[in-house]
Amino acid sequence: MCRWAAYVGQPIFLEDIVSRPAHSLIRQSQGATRCTTPVNADGFGLAWYGERGAPGLYRDVMPAWSDPNLRSLVAQVRSGLFMAHVRASTGTATSRNNCHPFVVGNWSFMHNGQFGGYDAFRRDADFLIPDALYGHRKGATDSEALFLIALGEGLADDPIGAMSRAIGRLSALSRRRGMAPHVRVTCAFSDGIRLFALRCASDDHAPTLFHRWSDSRNGRAVVSEPLETDEDDWQEVPSGSFCIFEGQEVKISDFRIEETAQVA
Amino acid sequence: MCRWAAYVGQPIFLEDIVSRPAHSLIRQSQGATRCTTPVNADGFGLAWYGERGAPGLYRDVMPAWSDPNLRSLVAQVRSGLFMAHVRASTGTATSRNNCHPFVVGNWSFMHNGQFGGYDAFRRDADFLIPDALYGHRKGATDSEALFLIALGEGLADDPIGAMSRAIGRLSALSRRRGMAPHVRVTCAFSDGIRLFALRCASDDHAPTLFHRWSDSRNGRAVVSEPLETDEDDWQEVPSGSFCIFEGQEVKISDFRIEETAQVA
Amino acid sequence: MCRWAAYVGQPIFLEDIVSRPAHSLIRQSQGATRCTTPVNADGFGLAWYGERGAPGLYRDVMPAWSDPNLRSLVAQVRSGLFMAHVRASTGTATSRNNCHPFVVGNWSFMHNGQFGGYDAFRRDADFLIPDALYGHRKGATDSEALFLIALGEGLADDPIGAMSRAIGRLSALSRRRGMAPHVRVTCAFSDGIRLFALRCASDDHAPTLFHRWSDSRNGRAVVSEPLETDEDDWQEVPSGSFCIFEGQEVKISDFRIEETAQVA
Amino acid sequence: MCRWAAYVGQPIFLEDIVSRPAHSLIRQSQGATRCTTPVNADGFGLAWYGERGAPGLYRDVMPAWSDPNLRSLVAQVRSGLFMAHVRASTGTATSRNNCHPFVVGNWSFMHNGQFGGYDAFRRDADFLIPDALYGHRKGATDSEALFLIALGEGLADDPIGAMSRAIGRLSALSRRRGMAPHVRVTCAFSDGIRLFALRCASDDHAPTLFHRWSDSRNGRAVVSEPLETDEDDWQEVPSGSFCIFEGQEVKISDFRIEETAQVA
Repeated sequence: MCRWAAYVGQPIFLEDIVSRPAHSLIRQSQGATRCTTPVNADGFGLAWYGERGAPGLYRDVMPAWSDPNLRSLVAQVRSGLFMAHVRASTGTATSRNNCHPFVVGNWSFMHNGQFGGYDAFRRDADFLIPDALYGHRKGATDSEALFLIALGEGLADDPIGAMSRAIGRLSALSRRRGMAPHVRVTCAFSDGIRLFALRCASDDHAPTLFHRWSDSRNGRAVVSEPLETDEDDWQEVPSGSFCIFEGQEVKISDFRIEETAQVA
Repeated sequence: MCRWAAYVGQPIFLEDIVSRPAHSLIRQSQGATRCTTPVNADGFGLAWYGERGAPGLYRDVMPAWSDPNLRSLVAQVRSGLFMAHVRASTGTATSRNNCHPFVVGNWSFMHNGQFGGYDAFRRDADFLIPDALYGHRKGATDSEALFLIALGEGLADDPIGAMSRAIGRLSALSRRRGMAPHVRVTCAFSDGIRLFALRCASDDHAPTLFHRWSDSRNGRAVVSEPLETDEDDWQEVPSGSFCIFEGQEVKISDFRIEETAQVA
Repeated sequence: MCRWAAYVGQPIFLEDIVSRPAHSLIRQSQGATRCTTPVNADGFGLAWYGERGAPGLYRDVMPAWSDPNLRSLVAQVRSGLFMAHVRASTGTATSRNNCHPFVVGNWSFMHNGQFGGYDAFRRDADFLIPDALYGHRKGATDSEALFLIALGEGLADDPIGAMSRAIGRLSALSRRRGMAPHVRVTCAFSDGIRLFALRCASDDHAPTLFHRWSDSRNGRAVVSEPLETDEDDWQEVPSGSFCIFEGQEVKISDFRIEETAQVA
Repeated sequence: MCRWAAYVGQPIFLEDIVSRPAHSLIRQSQGATRCTTPVNADGFGLAWYGERGAPGLYRDVMPAWSDPNLRSLVAQVRSGLFMAHVRASTGTATSRNNCHPFVVGNWSFMHNGQFGGYDAFRRDADFLIPDALYGHRKGATDSEALFLIALGEGLADDPIGAMSRAIGRLSALSRRRGMAPHVRVTCAFSDGIRLFALRCASDDHAPTLFHRWSDSRNGRAVVSEPLETDEDDWQEVPSGSFCIFEGQEVKISDFRIEETAQVA
């Protein structure tokens, strides 16, 4: 499991989400409260949108709490759309290439969850990545694979459909060659304009997902766990939901995993 | 706080102490049970004596549990005298030079503890290191300073006296310019033949220290916390003790901090 | 391009090959003389056989010359069969998982060379790795792919044939989708008993390969470049050769790339 | 030796100095042409001024050319005052804490040069750092010591005088206990408003220093080596000079090392 936090709204310093809140993402890396792995110290990453189409990307393998570069970066950089992730490996090596977020062109993606028995069908999962995108396969995680498969399924034109088909294809592999729980996905991704998030699972344990609009910041945080313990207006997104956050607006639709018969 | 483990006896693979026991040092890096900081993920280190006078030294800044180099090394290297350490920083940066053990010539040293308010008298502490040893001052920790000051006080000829005076000088600095608790020290060190350990504090909370002879290994483990939870013959060393472990022998003497009037 | 050095014979300290000779591998990382990229600073690695079937593996992303862990390790560890590599990336990221040697079970492998236009057929190359070995695909290099494909082709039972077919399959991909030069391979690999090396290319520029028996060491060095400039008895292995080094013995056979029609 | 580049003027993307020019700082890390160590691969660093008083700081131990974080950062971040450095160690370890620039409050500093025989008087050099600044002593380089000593000598109120006295005190130590050449310093530093640079030496080999105003960028680059080989209007600063760059203005004064009798 992992923890992540994203933001869309008026530009703020990244530290306002990443390190300053009482239960900031960095605090969650030391002691998350709503997941089974309280310590998320197997690397971290940041993707932020600035003046360019493609986001900035900063990832490293240390615990987030001990990296002075990270502390300095989040104190300096201001962005109106960014995401940050702390990792607890579910098996693959601690390596920058296995750290979230993943970036392809103007798209960024980060994930908290798993496909059951992924190690047993990793090669099959790689085959679902189209050749044109394969150059972006740098690491070995199921998360990066999911992102690239979704891009291949047309993420840009049909985000909900592409994600539904991509998760469905990996789910089918897990059913055929892996093990239960087949799917637990709570991910966020962005094209640099909208922030998307989805929460789903093949069982009753989809990783948590919350969001909250802040009038003082004039922006919205979308997170694994609420960033403050004394704010009671965090909204939990139910499992089986697909969210689009754009400016102040929120659109939440039902999300179903589209598991097709054919796999590879 | 930190956790450490050392061994002296018949040569064994390092993994027999570092990673294989149920509550091995690597497990303790994820969840120590007898100290206030259960996660010790700010770097780690190994020093082992082999065919040469000077020990081998391997240190890195990742959590011990996520480094494949460490896993491979402890599975390959066999030694009859070695020490291993996992770090939870009490302030100084995560850096290889701040990781334990520290090595000078054939001496190695590792530490769990603190001198209260060290940041306020770091410069004074550095001045206690003799010029001839100052080239070995690579990082910024109180632990490395203690080791170099003790070497300067004659660690080779009078281990207990040198350590008593070195801790005393740092204790005096803490009393004058730092804050309580002034001293909490549980450390281990070796010249390549004997393994020394000491436990002391200026209050009632000296970090824990245990040892146990294993007939099957034909050697002794000296540790912060017992390596197995179901072994009831681990012996706790009381605070205010200085231990010499050589072969199967154990000599434990009273240890007093010798705080002299003059400081620098 | 990269530089590498291997050794088989009476156990010696790794430093006798890696760092002590006048033109040691570490010196070659700073200034290789027989290849187009004199600086090989994109990571390094060591695999050594000791008391266990599987070799020890130590890899990191710094330049070999600046890693104190490496310096300490090669001064302590003694082995009768080992290999070491310094990397100059031809495109893929600097990452531990992209550093040589690669290890699967008791087999180790390292490589200097390239398959022309590999980026264009990386996905096809991955498909040549059998499912049972795919869990060992950790990075993104052509070298790791070659090793895993060769294992799939039966490296254990028929080293020369397996390597010939594996290189042939990648060569066919390069011809179909890549670019010239299609193949330049000078690699070394071992099962823990024998040390194999081969040199081949689809043009006249196979990376160099030398070996030399030392009576004083009672062992043989097999290297990219001679380790001393004043020794005139280094033997260059001609392109199109497959070598087996076992004890003092050397068997060199012709090596042909077996490029079959069917690819994937 | 090392290479560095700084910029003051209209905000530009850092990559316009760090990585895009034909002989950019990253190119110089692979092949500097005006110094004796062409490869500067022992770490790198960036300090940039943005919306806050204190600059951002990003440093790591890999070669600058192989760090994707660096590449991404310099493509995203825009600044009107920044400095970047690539390091070739003259002895001290490759460690983030030994990488330039160094930052204290709103001041940043980077250096190319050496004090002859520094290892022999490192302790004395540390004693020249005032107690109030000693907490900023994180590494072991002469460069960081010079910066902290200069701050202690009043860098904020009297930049040229403070630097003259600081270099003088280290020069006196080198004369007394070190070796020739006693001083070679070409450094840059900033308070977030002005960019300072100085070039001096106790012999005829002060490291090079150039600057050039660009009308297209509306800013000035101040560098170890010209960033383009086909621009003939780079101005070399003679040895024994102290420069203040503010907006479009340049003030260059004579600089003398003020070596006082008393040392510590």
